[in-house]
Amino acid sequence: MSRRSERSERRLFLAEGRNAVVAALTAGVVVEVLALPGREHLLPDLPENLPLTLVDQRALTALTDTVTPAGVVALCRFLDVPLEQALTGPFVAICADVADPGNAGTVIRCADAAGASSVVLAGNAVDLYNPKTLRASAGSAFHLPVHVAAEVPAVIAAAQAAGFQVLATQAAGDVDLFAADDLLARPTAWLFGNEAHGLAPEHAALADHRVSIPIHGRAESLNLATAAAVCLYASARVRHARG
Amino acid sequence: MSRRSERSERRLFLAEGRNAVVAALTAGVVVEVLALPGREHLLPDLPENLPLTLVDQRALTALTDTVTPAGVVALCRFLDVPLEQALTGPFVAICADVADPGNAGTVIRCADAAGASSVVLAGNAVDLYNPKTLRASAGSAFHLPVHVAAEVPAVIAAAQAAGFQVLATQAAGDVDLFAADDLLARPTAWLFGNEAHGLAPEHAALADHRVSIPIHGRAESLNLATAAAVCLYASARVRHARG
Repeated sequence: MSRRSERSERRLFLAEGRNAVVAALTAGVVVEVLALPGREHLLPDLPENLPLTLVDQRALTALTDTVTPAGVVALCRFLDVPLEQALTGPFVAICADVADPGNAGTVIRCADAAGASSVVLAGNAVDLYNPKTLRASAGSAFHLPVHVAAEVPAVIAAAQAAGFQVLATQAAGDVDLFAADDLLARPTAWLFGNEAHGLAPEHAALADHRVSIPIHGRAESLNLATAAAVCLYASARVRHARG
Repeated sequence: MSRRSERSERRLFLAEGRNAVVAALTAGVVVEVLALPGREHLLPDLPENLPLTLVDQRALTALTDTVTPAGVVALCRFLDVPLEQALTGPFVAICADVADPGNAGTVIRCADAAGASSVVLAGNAVDLYNPKTLRASAGSAFHLPVHVAAEVPAVIAAAQAAGFQVLATQAAGDVDLFAADDLLARPTAWLFGNEAHGLAPEHAALADHRVSIPIHGRAESLNLATAAAVCLYASARVRHARG
């Protein structure tokens, strides 16, 4: 289960460690729980019909391809949702071509915390079920709806058809985030780009507006996760203020 | 120069790679520039009085203790500033016991971008001159004033004496960030805690207010860098709105 191709084929992934196992159980996606002998105490109470298998360190290492000091893992069904299920609610986050699992997971965590309805991982994106993505999401990948899509333009078009304005984040946008409160009161799909190269110009061009976070000092930019946090919390603040 | 103790003793550190060397030159802290033969073209124009030393890969590796594919480094004087120089301007960020260099660097980058006047790394903090801190700061460590302090309570007291209100970030604070605009219009020293354990209660108690970022969804918290980005940009927004 340590390779993306294997996960994709079986549509199963591993939740590693107690916190992830608990989140996976809450999400109702657990097929089987595995533990090293003597580590069962780390597990929460399991539903009666859920098998617990004791495995040795070698078998666990073969499964996870990482050192798992906690010694408890859950084999889980994929939990990504169809696109139409992701395109609901007040605001959503679309990550286009985000390549780093830590970044993708952190955006999912921020989106959940800010009150977004979902996250879409679109384009040439990191695997949602990469253990590093799951870990960085701090459990949010297990309960915030996430859709995985191959094509960014199709996601943008679907969001617009579903009534969302698409706001692309760009260094030189046409709208200043600090002057965007009226925009932010509308249903919004935030569009974030690759951590190294930013949003592809052809994707930014498809958005309804291109929004810039004001950058003071001599900094050139924010990194992806902090930029996403600032934008998503701008949406949350305006929705809070306008009830 | 790869060990903190060696850096501290000599009060010198290495800026690694072209971008860092350029930032260090702009900051005027470069003592000497080192390059692998054939990599000099990566360097910007150097001041006439600045020595360029060509070194072989072995010598460079011994200095940096990391693989430096760029092959250009600058030996730099420490650039942290005295506390009184850090405690100026509209708002500042105090990192208390922040242990991870990536987090510290990202907070410095965010603070710079948001328009903060400075960052204070206080308590049991990561080394400002750790290559990972510098890299995560994306150059901001070279031009935003940073103070390094041993004691968190002394920094809080000095900030208050300098006319700053100290706002601690806490999961269960007494002020909601979304209802804090009047507070944020005042000179503010944001106080952020350790990435794993949060802010120590005895430090939070010394602050003028404890502020919570509203957490929606089922997320429990934001990570340190994204929380700092949201708070610092809240200060930036209010200052922008009130001119």
